[in-house]
Amino acid sequence: MATQPVSENRSLNEECGIFGVWGHQSAADLTYYGLHALQHRGQEGAGIVANKQGRLWQERGLGLLSDVFSDPSRLQHLQGQSAIGHVRYATAGSGGIENIQPLMVNFSDMQLSLAHNGNITNALSLRRSLEQNGAIFQSSSDTEVLLHLIRRSSAPTFYDKLKDALRTVRGGFAFLLLTPTAMYAALDPHGFRPFVVGQMPDGQYIVTSETAALNAVGATFIRDVQPGELITIDQHGLKIDHYTTNTDLHIDAMEYIYFARPDSDIYGVNVHTARKRMGRLLAAEQPVEADLVVGVPNSSLSAAMGFAEAAGLPNEMGLVKNQYIARTFIEPTQERRERAVRMKLSAVPSVVAGKRVVLVDDSIVRGTTSKFIVWMLREAGASEVHIRIASPAFKYPSFYGVDMQTTEELLAANYSMTEMQEMLGVDSLAFLSVDGLVEAIDLPYEGNGTGLTTAYFDGHYPSPIYDYEPTLADAKADGLVDFQPEPTTTYHPNQVASLQKQQLQDAQTVG
Amino acid sequence: MATQPVSENRSLNEECGIFGVWGHQSAADLTYYGLHALQHRGQEGAGIVANKQGRLWQERGLGLLSDVFSDPSRLQHLQGQSAIGHVRYATAGSGGIENIQPLMVNFSDMQLSLAHNGNITNALSLRRSLEQNGAIFQSSSDTEVLLHLIRRSSAPTFYDKLKDALRTVRGGFAFLLLTPTAMYAALDPHGFRPFVVGQMPDGQYIVTSETAALNAVGATFIRDVQPGELITIDQHGLKIDHYTTNTDLHIDAMEYIYFARPDSDIYGVNVHTARKRMGRLLAAEQPVEADLVVGVPNSSLSAAMGFAEAAGLPNEMGLVKNQYIARTFIEPTQERRERAVRMKLSAVPSVVAGKRVVLVDDSIVRGTTSKFIVWMLREAGASEVHIRIASPAFKYPSFYGVDMQTTEELLAANYSMTEMQEMLGVDSLAFLSVDGLVEAIDLPYEGNGTGLTTAYFDGHYPSPIYDYEPTLADAKADGLVDFQPEPTTTYHPNQVASLQKQQLQDAQTVG
Amino acid sequence: MATQPVSENRSLNEECGIFGVWGHQSAADLTYYGLHALQHRGQEGAGIVANKQGRLWQERGLGLLSDVFSDPSRLQHLQGQSAIGHVRYATAGSGGIENIQPLMVNFSDMQLSLAHNGNITNALSLRRSLEQNGAIFQSSSDTEVLLHLIRRSSAPTFYDKLKDALRTVRGGFAFLLLTPTAMYAALDPHGFRPFVVGQMPDGQYIVTSETAALNAVGATFIRDVQPGELITIDQHGLKIDHYTTNTDLHIDAMEYIYFARPDSDIYGVNVHTARKRMGRLLAAEQPVEADLVVGVPNSSLSAAMGFAEAAGLPNEMGLVKNQYIARTFIEPTQERRERAVRMKLSAVPSVVAGKRVVLVDDSIVRGTTSKFIVWMLREAGASEVHIRIASPAFKYPSFYGVDMQTTEELLAANYSMTEMQEMLGVDSLAFLSVDGLVEAIDLPYEGNGTGLTTAYFDGHYPSPIYDYEPTLADAKADGLVDFQPEPTTTYHPNQVASLQKQQLQDAQTVG
Amino acid sequence: MATQPVSENRSLNEECGIFGVWGHQSAADLTYYGLHALQHRGQEGAGIVANKQGRLWQERGLGLLSDVFSDPSRLQHLQGQSAIGHVRYATAGSGGIENIQPLMVNFSDMQLSLAHNGNITNALSLRRSLEQNGAIFQSSSDTEVLLHLIRRSSAPTFYDKLKDALRTVRGGFAFLLLTPTAMYAALDPHGFRPFVVGQMPDGQYIVTSETAALNAVGATFIRDVQPGELITIDQHGLKIDHYTTNTDLHIDAMEYIYFARPDSDIYGVNVHTARKRMGRLLAAEQPVEADLVVGVPNSSLSAAMGFAEAAGLPNEMGLVKNQYIARTFIEPTQERRERAVRMKLSAVPSVVAGKRVVLVDDSIVRGTTSKFIVWMLREAGASEVHIRIASPAFKYPSFYGVDMQTTEELLAANYSMTEMQEMLGVDSLAFLSVDGLVEAIDLPYEGNGTGLTTAYFDGHYPSPIYDYEPTLADAKADGLVDFQPEPTTTYHPNQVASLQKQQLQDAQTVG
Repeated sequence: MATQPVSENRSLNEECGIFGVWGHQSAADLTYYGLHALQHRGQEGAGIVANKQGRLWQERGLGLLSDVFSDPSRLQHLQGQSAIGHVRYATAGSGGIENIQPLMVNFSDMQLSLAHNGNITNALSLRRSLEQNGAIFQSSSDTEVLLHLIRRSSAPTFYDKLKDALRTVRGGFAFLLLTPTAMYAALDPHGFRPFVVGQMPDGQYIVTSETAALNAVGATFIRDVQPGELITIDQHGLKIDHYTTNTDLHIDAMEYIYFARPDSDIYGVNVHTARKRMGRLLAAEQPVEADLVVGVPNSSLSAAMGFAEAAGLPNEMGLVKNQYIARTFIEPTQERRERAVRMKLSAVPSVVAGKRVVLVDDSIVRGTTSKFIVWMLREAGASEVHIRIASPAFKYPSFYGVDMQTTEELLAANYSMTEMQEMLGVDSLAFLSVDGLVEAIDLPYEGNGTGLTTAYFDGHYPSPIYDYEPTLADAKADGLVDFQPEPTTTYHPNQVASLQKQQLQDAQTVG
Repeated sequence: MATQPVSENRSLNEECGIFGVWGHQSAADLTYYGLHALQHRGQEGAGIVANKQGRLWQERGLGLLSDVFSDPSRLQHLQGQSAIGHVRYATAGSGGIENIQPLMVNFSDMQLSLAHNGNITNALSLRRSLEQNGAIFQSSSDTEVLLHLIRRSSAPTFYDKLKDALRTVRGGFAFLLLTPTAMYAALDPHGFRPFVVGQMPDGQYIVTSETAALNAVGATFIRDVQPGELITIDQHGLKIDHYTTNTDLHIDAMEYIYFARPDSDIYGVNVHTARKRMGRLLAAEQPVEADLVVGVPNSSLSAAMGFAEAAGLPNEMGLVKNQYIARTFIEPTQERRERAVRMKLSAVPSVVAGKRVVLVDDSIVRGTTSKFIVWMLREAGASEVHIRIASPAFKYPSFYGVDMQTTEELLAANYSMTEMQEMLGVDSLAFLSVDGLVEAIDLPYEGNGTGLTTAYFDGHYPSPIYDYEPTLADAKADGLVDFQPEPTTTYHPNQVASLQKQQLQDAQTVG
Repeated sequence: MATQPVSENRSLNEECGIFGVWGHQSAADLTYYGLHALQHRGQEGAGIVANKQGRLWQERGLGLLSDVFSDPSRLQHLQGQSAIGHVRYATAGSGGIENIQPLMVNFSDMQLSLAHNGNITNALSLRRSLEQNGAIFQSSSDTEVLLHLIRRSSAPTFYDKLKDALRTVRGGFAFLLLTPTAMYAALDPHGFRPFVVGQMPDGQYIVTSETAALNAVGATFIRDVQPGELITIDQHGLKIDHYTTNTDLHIDAMEYIYFARPDSDIYGVNVHTARKRMGRLLAAEQPVEADLVVGVPNSSLSAAMGFAEAAGLPNEMGLVKNQYIARTFIEPTQERRERAVRMKLSAVPSVVAGKRVVLVDDSIVRGTTSKFIVWMLREAGASEVHIRIASPAFKYPSFYGVDMQTTEELLAANYSMTEMQEMLGVDSLAFLSVDGLVEAIDLPYEGNGTGLTTAYFDGHYPSPIYDYEPTLADAKADGLVDFQPEPTTTYHPNQVASLQKQQLQDAQTVG
Repeated sequence: MATQPVSENRSLNEECGIFGVWGHQSAADLTYYGLHALQHRGQEGAGIVANKQGRLWQERGLGLLSDVFSDPSRLQHLQGQSAIGHVRYATAGSGGIENIQPLMVNFSDMQLSLAHNGNITNALSLRRSLEQNGAIFQSSSDTEVLLHLIRRSSAPTFYDKLKDALRTVRGGFAFLLLTPTAMYAALDPHGFRPFVVGQMPDGQYIVTSETAALNAVGATFIRDVQPGELITIDQHGLKIDHYTTNTDLHIDAMEYIYFARPDSDIYGVNVHTARKRMGRLLAAEQPVEADLVVGVPNSSLSAAMGFAEAAGLPNEMGLVKNQYIARTFIEPTQERRERAVRMKLSAVPSVVAGKRVVLVDDSIVRGTTSKFIVWMLREAGASEVHIRIASPAFKYPSFYGVDMQTTEELLAANYSMTEMQEMLGVDSLAFLSVDGLVEAIDLPYEGNGTGLTTAYFDGHYPSPIYDYEPTLADAKADGLVDFQPEPTTTYHPNQVASLQKQQLQDAQTVG
């Protein structure tokens, strides 16, 4: 009998979160508090690297931040003037300590540390090419590729080597690098991931994944990192440069729908407000006769507020979330799955009994949890249950930093609306439209397109996906995807087209 | 440098939670899941005693349930057909493992285990009397008194000894006892604590603190345990008896306001619904010109919903709670206190900036957290902040199972409304009236009075408080309390009137 | 698969060790170092109670001293001017934390702590009697009886209550008691256990089980505690008193043979020197033609030295002991038993191959380890193996503080010399005579008898054994024991004659 | 206050121990038991890599073997048919988990694991050269160099790459490599480290550091690995090859004196027997008038036996070693040092008081422990203390796998015999001669020279020491060393002569 933390049953996994601060006397402590505010972006591992009197020191471990640093001496070891940190989501099979970031290497002439949020789509090709040239990889993380590219670049300076390496990797990435003399931040050319710069009251700079982490440490928001930027922070202050100008904003819409905290702003849009608008527009697009609205706590509470207000229905607490960490013990799978949901969520009979309930959820991925929630509401006496999803149907795989690289398990990719309605056991089912989503987010973007990546919903991928093409080819063969990427300038020679899907899964890690 | 879990900064501490099941093959597992649903009632310790082939086995430890049972072998050791469990809140100084319940004693002729939720008001007198007669107490818990009273009773049978002991203790208590041959449940004559009976689909009986725990294990609610009842569950089924008929319901109003889960029903009233009504009535009693309503998550969200609906204002997520366990490291006290709040709560600038905010909270005890929340909202740009408290002002000490036995730290006991408004830094401050509270709870009770204990707010104590009289005398001397208890029939001879306050604090433990 | 520390395979278990110091500013640290020197007397639990500014504080845990105190804050918690400590051997089934000593009780009028080395032979009777009068025992340890006897004594002062209690218990015991105002040491009327007083260079007094612990902390030996003494150490210095003068020295011979450290002196006799003399006399009594002598490390090295010198044979390292803690994983029992021995001991082929070996061991209890050692020596090529045991054959049960209360597992109690020789697979087998043992120890005692308890070997028990009489009756029925105890003055009325053996085993704990 | 295991105070640190087995169904378990028998060779870390169905799995950690594998699931994870393991001694600053062996790398086309006992003298040069060519090192261990050399070799097959790499490294090394298809063992051309092949009763091959590990698992000794050999063990059995024939046996004499277990045989010589002969010859070379002989337990007991027998003096247990792990808490350094010795060793007053003692020790390195032992013997009443060291004076640094690379702390390198005698506080001091040492070991070697490395004592280094030359140059400048290495054939081009000593110390790790 072994324990299994219930959080693993999450249907769609977040990506990673990163935080860095330069020149502050409590750098590691601030990083700890900042990472705590980003814990929702990764619960499987955490680490901090700090610069203490010209040397980098690393502490990292498996599990939640508070577990990794439960021994206070670990933070004490990291006292110094600058630090970067990482919280991590790990795919199955990649859970070893060697993959926990920030990665750190000790060259005889310099020390370098690296934290990454995203997914490098040509990592496998690059790794094979590097190994054929004698490189030894210690981790199975795609992140390590960048270190080898920097090390092997023939450019004259570290800064040029870094630019060289950034131009070689593909996909979605926000990188933080720390050396004894500077901190660097770089964002991919499409800006798939949120990445912001802030400033402490005394002027020290912070770069991190979400503005919520700035609030958590008492810092002020300065600006979003822009696609293609390479930012240097050192004793001379902050310098903004570009490693490429061939950029095109495509921030991942899932950040607004699901990943980011409601109190974060991304490119000027507050996430809670966007979610509430998704709920409002959903109520307008897909009205329903009902007695009350119930949101799935906690992620769907904003959308439920918006839906209830627009529909003129009372918003009730028909589902209650247990705020304590749940652990189930091994039971036959189905029983355990139900147990896990029951330990996290309870339906409230005295609220829903005899009532027609609109259940508002932010998304449906596999549908297993939704199905059980519906069952619990009916068990508690709800007379009707109507699901309204505050985002479009999730039909296509993702390759830019989300753990959903095949469509096999996606409910909406495999079943019709009628089939889904039946499988979930609901009286009606409806999704927000893609246009509604774009309108709800209302990104103040003036370039071509929407500035958003909505590939999950419409199959339009904004950039080539390199090593994942065989995967996507499978999806295309199933008639799912109409992929027409825009051309990009700097293809890498090692691009391969015929990798086996299994190999990809073996080697792949989301950072 | 040492770590401090942030949860200790809670301004008012919950009491304990208990759960017992008889005759089920997964008794210990059910107890674990039930206690998980009651974790909000006590986070400092947890334990389970199970009856395995006629012998009782105990596992207990300090910390959260999931920590105590993180080693799965601990639950495995408890396999058997019946079990009782306990989650515990511990006052400072009483945190030793020997106080963690269920307590267990091995007599040469029987085994007995005991779990308790409440506070025995004559425990200190009884303990002194027992010690003078040679008793040795191992714990500092008031709960152990009952074991000695049972053991020393001259009644002929265990059942009669138990009744004898129950008639001797005073105060608020819900007891669960487990022997190798039966489980017993007893509630105090005023029914201060919630206590319910449920049934598993296959008929096995459960007795526990809240209906939420019944839902969590898939059991059906049968009835509330009534004041003065002694219930026996054994191989012959369930037997309801009374150890006294001199009863008078006075369920603690704080259970509805703050302690119980929103999905629990107490004496037929759903807690979320009662809270929402508190919010509605508060909006009617204390209206305010404002742009939006913000509830303090998570405990005040129901009241905020009610307030917003009644006031016709949008209910917004202007405060976000971090769902992960926070740990602060030792810093100068004020800094650490703020850090602790910041790690739990964030104000959302893009929601509240430039807005007149109604901040709805369930209660104010010391006011320190409220003050900092107001400060965060202003820092985030709120133009006005109006606090509306969905319960009356908390002015009097409590002796029936809540950790607030002096008025020294109670904000409302020591300052006028104007002073409080200034201290909290708000534009206005208002509380729900006691009448509004009673109306919102709307208890279907047909006896004398309201069926509620509202002593916190009005100083009317429904029963003598024995060993705490000196404490109360202090409060009276300050002109705070107009205490006129009704007479009760079975006074205990050991009642003492002149104990020193300090001694009381040393010896006192809330179960 | 679970781990099993190899040390559990020890054939005869040591008793407990105790250490106390009064008035020293590093009292807890000294106690820690003293207990470390006594670790051989008990490895299953350890604890220290210290007097810190008038209050007693306790730290205790399961396992080795270094494990229990691996967190340095545990010792820090115990800073104060006096302390007592205990290392414990626990019988199966009594391994709970509640049995770990020093025991501590908090009465409303005083605090008291107790550490015990020995075995109270009328503990079960006393416990039953006390329970019938309402006492509640928390531990299953026989030690707790003394606390209840003190508490219930009708004598006027604590000191008189203590004397009263000491006169009521029977068997072998060395007690250390600590209160906020004094430390007390008491030894049973036969002096079964070693117990010594020492003094630090600055004059502070220490009382402990062995002189080795005095050496370990840099203290000087002052005197052996005498049978029947009650010693008080407080701010006025050291006071020697007697709670009884009906005394008769019978120090346990096994302390010299096996339990005590070779560097300890007991009643003026150095243990190593006594063992070496046992080896010399054994060589004289039981000569053998051989090439070399091999002692079983570490306990038999002194005896082997003596045997080799007397026999004129080379003393060789034919068996090597691994100095690191061994842990075996669960395997079929016989395999695991062999594995456990192999992990602790290795035979050295290049030393013993082709040689006639005299294997010197201190004792044979069950014979299983000896049998395997013989097998290893033969596997390593020894041409002959002759066992010489440096103590008499162990045939009778022990009741004064050693874990061997039945004769079922005693090899010598159940088999003839010829049978044993065959079972062990040796070319010859011989034991030291009882007279030889007494001569080797050479106790400077001038009373009646030898001053030694040799009941293991000859069945002469120096005092009634109360609750164990049924056990002994079984042994007598088998024709093993010729028990004729001397009369003693103060029989206890609760003595019972017909207890079942199983009950005894359940309730019995060696301290 | 932090704890410090006393074992760190060891004056001369052992090297590492390695163990490998091929084709046995309990491969990981055997490796565990084998490493347990080698624990004396390294206590700071342990690890095992096993081949389970064609994939290598690694478990490793800091601390003793029994700590690293205290969770039995770690061994369970390693079930498979072959395994290699390592126990490690780590120099200060190199204690990270990434340095714990066996190292493991996952190439996209193969897996490789490596365990190393020794010290590569040109590791720093090689590492710099490799890094300049783009290599990234994860560990600071010299062992990792071999992996990069294999990976970057241009030879066509893995076997040829391995030979290439073995020909490039210099110094003392015994390597075990495991791939999914074979196990390899290689010894340096001078055979500095012991390395033996054994066989299980069912024919499976084992290669390990000492024969004691063969005994521990029930295996039979087959042969010593010879200098320059490369042995392959796979499904076809055992194949012996040479990667070089330019070999010259120089087994480290310290293995006989101090490092190896007394029950091991090295090149046919039993270690206990050699030590006993060292004691005999020492008694002949350096006789002394005395009453008794006392050996320092445990390492010097063999030599003391030999001395006592040759001198005709009684061998007594005047010093007793505590067999339990000692931990001291932080105290002022000198006090703590003494405390650490006291916790490990006690002098026995009743043995030594008034006696002239010959204290036999195996070696003197820094002399601090010896000095304190002498002091303890005098405190215990010894009238005279004469030290006799059963090896020559230790004057020169070591570079082939022992942690003593400077002479700064070597007592004998810095003081005359008279000075040492005074510093130690002894009545006389004498060492065994180098000739006596060679005669005592009596190696059955028929090549040039003695077959032994005695550089510690005479400064004759059998091979160039490459990166350590600056260190040695310092020693030469002090007039200590008359280094004239024999020429060797295959110099490496990267040899550097002017490295700074500090850099060397930073980078250096003994495997």
